Amino acid sequence: MTKQMIIGMHLGNGYGSQPGAWRMPGVDPKNFASFDAKVRYAQAAERGKMQFLFLPDGPSHVGDIGNEAPHFNLDVMMTLAAIARGTERIGLVATGSTTFNEPYNLARSFKALDIMSHGRAGWNAVTSSGEDVAANYGQRIPSSADRYGRAHETVQLVQALWGSWGKDAWVHDVESGRFANEDQIQPINMGGKYVASRGPLYIPPSEQGQPVIFHAGGSPNAHALAGRFANVVIGATFTIEDAKAQRQAFRDAAEHAGRDPDEIKFIAGMMTTIAADRRAGLDRKIALTGRTFPQRVRYLEQMLGVPLDPSRLNEPLSKQQLAAARPSPMDPRSRNALKIAKEGWSLSDILAHGVIDYHPSIVGPGVEAADHMQEWFEAGAVDGFWISPDVYQDGVDAFVDGVVPILQERGLFHRDYEGATLRDHVGAPAQYGIDPRV
Amino acid sequence: MTKQMIIGMHLGNGYGSQPGAWRMPGVDPKNFASFDAKVRYAQAAERGKMQFLFLPDGPSHVGDIGNEAPHFNLDVMMTLAAIARGTERIGLVATGSTTFNEPYNLARSFKALDIMSHGRAGWNAVTSSGEDVAANYGQRIPSSADRYGRAHETVQLVQALWGSWGKDAWVHDVESGRFANEDQIQPINMGGKYVASRGPLYIPPSEQGQPVIFHAGGSPNAHALAGRFANVVIGATFTIEDAKAQRQAFRDAAEHAGRDPDEIKFIAGMMTTIAADRRAGLDRKIALTGRTFPQRVRYLEQMLGVPLDPSRLNEPLSKQQLAAARPSPMDPRSRNALKIAKEGWSLSDILAHGVIDYHPSIVGPGVEAADHMQEWFEAGAVDGFWISPDVYQDGVDAFVDGVVPILQERGLFHRDYEGATLRDHVGAPAQYGIDPRV
Repeated sequence: MTKQMIIGMHLGNGYGSQPGAWRMPGVDPKNFASFDAKVRYAQAAERGKMQFLFLPDGPSHVGDIGNEAPHFNLDVMMTLAAIARGTERIGLVATGSTTFNEPYNLARSFKALDIMSHGRAGWNAVTSSGEDVAANYGQRIPSSADRYGRAHETVQLVQALWGSWGKDAWVHDVESGRFANEDQIQPINMGGKYVASRGPLYIPPSEQGQPVIFHAGGSPNAHALAGRFANVVIGATFTIEDAKAQRQAFRDAAEHAGRDPDEIKFIAGMMTTIAADRRAGLDRKIALTGRTFPQRVRYLEQMLGVPLDPSRLNEPLSKQQLAAARPSPMDPRSRNALKIAKEGWSLSDILAHGVIDYHPSIVGPGVEAADHMQEWFEAGAVDGFWISPDVYQDGVDAFVDGVVPILQERGLFHRDYEGATLRDHVGAPAQYGIDPRV
Repeated sequence: MTKQMIIGMHLGNGYGSQPGAWRMPGVDPKNFASFDAKVRYAQAAERGKMQFLFLPDGPSHVGDIGNEAPHFNLDVMMTLAAIARGTERIGLVATGSTTFNEPYNLARSFKALDIMSHGRAGWNAVTSSGEDVAANYGQRIPSSADRYGRAHETVQLVQALWGSWGKDAWVHDVESGRFANEDQIQPINMGGKYVASRGPLYIPPSEQGQPVIFHAGGSPNAHALAGRFANVVIGATFTIEDAKAQRQAFRDAAEHAGRDPDEIKFIAGMMTTIAADRRAGLDRKIALTGRTFPQRVRYLEQMLGVPLDPSRLNEPLSKQQLAAARPSPMDPRSRNALKIAKEGWSLSDILAHGVIDYHPSIVGPGVEAADHMQEWFEAGAVDGFWISPDVYQDGVDAFVDGVVPILQERGLFHRDYEGATLRDHVGAPAQYGIDPRV
């Protein structure tokens, strides 16, 4: 069988990845607090055979709370617990900070999730870099060296704790009265410069043994951490060339750590507004984000290097403006923005194309998303995508019904889950406790 | 209406509170890892209109793992998340250490539970005193002064974070596009000697505003902490006299903190083996715990102050032994043990009465449990009980069908939930953020 792509879905605040999602028709504006809604969206993604859900986490609240919902779930682990109870196959991945959590607490909650989901848990181990997050813990953000130093120790400790109840330790034999094999339940007695734990953790293996490690980050420190521990990288990149370079950096880092580079998958972000046609997609995006356009025009000016008039949103750029425009080398989105501008779209429509979104944005019919994904995947730039639907209420179904079948038809995406666990879904090799190779 | 008692249920490892529960007929020996089972037992308690479930937590593993299950849930919060999704009315209370958790993390997970359960969450805020627990965090147990110092700060911070999104802050008005009232979302900027947080927490109020504070402990420090913050005390006591004294100490402490003493409820522990008659109860208890009797005889010797012969378990104490016996003043269970011994039961049956259990133990028909509860309750010794069924698989139903109806018949226990939230169930007054009185 030819290689197929992995697709994950971002599941955030209960509304969607675009500002204004909470106000869209059909959306319950109380979904921020609705676990029912999040379970429903997870089920929709599972219907599309997506390999995993990804719940990023701050934890902090920044942004325009007067007009927009916080980005994150109330509590990512509690949300995934609810979703674990309401789904059967899809992987469940949450961000957990190595800087602001005790290893023992991380080990316990993620392995409990792994048990309750029957082997579908993944931990996106990140160091947290926001001072706003640190302040919630009465701290300042440590240096990158200290953060990554602690991250290395924390992941090792957590994996050691996961393995501290040996693979076959849990006997539960009623006949003999033997509950567990004590010889296979051992303290870990590990400690370093930053964290320590005696252990053992008192949780037996899940169907996949232990959770899968994810990482998100782009620095050399991130490459080293992910290369050593991660099976999946949650990437952010705007071009095939950059994606290729990033993917290679992580593969090199894995190899450097003594692992097979195919054990680490690079997954690029993508935002979706799937609609019947481009025009319908743009109109939907305008309804979602139009309120922010006057302010986004200022960004676009910098990206294109020409003055733009926020009061003339419905007009395309003039010939003079297009001729004078120079994509900013500081922003990788600029070339795409200029390309769209040259197609003659109005200022409003240019912005509606998502040229300033956090990830490449598809606004239009499903086939355009499928084409984008095929191009990147076949170029060897990515092992898959994590998509951020604009509005969960109908945007997940739009992707599942409008994009997934095309990818399946083209042989690029599986028609059903091959296995039962997240390890199966992302091709992560069996592991229990610390990987002896790294 | 006359005052009625509160009843909570201990929900531990998935088997029951007695060693050997995991091996009993009808019990799935894999229940330690089964969230389905725990949800089922919670539903049974809810059928009995119990006010809350109580999930204690170590977190550590100590004990005879070769023969017995760990006492605690894999992860109390993940377990309660599953139970929140599978129940409607019963309160959900878990222990969370103030020593080994960051206030921001505690605030977030408990308030998320409160939201997902529609106002049924309670936090048993304890300081943790076991070196085995501390070692899992690479630490030693701090002094009592430091632990309680941190506990006071932590509860205050957590409550401040709970109130940092004001009661009416969440507008979610689609028409006007106003998501929240920024004026009511404020940083807390609190910090003391031990912990600090800037906030705000980004979670709106639940149906009960914020979770209810529980506490468990018996020292003067515990009285002061509970008197200031708690609405329910998870007690441990063996006699009416002691229970009265403990209850009064907590009430005095509440008054000292400027609160109405009726705002704090003292709930005593009770273990149950409910059966058709006393003999059937004793036989059930022997099946559950008989394996431990030879070693428990050694305890009983100390309690009664006479030598006993572990090889003659089936014989009652001799007249000489009974005459020589002196209940140990060090162990409040001793007088009851001697009383049982004098009734002529065999050594095995004496132990099967649960005379060395962690709480007063009822082994026999439901009416005996009801009588015990009525006596204590009407003596003003307790505001209610938290029961620990011997085996969840059938022990919860045995209590619900064998004890609850008698209590209801006698007017001692409600016939249905009066309200929807845990605050309603335990008579805790409305509170949002920090109680201004304390």
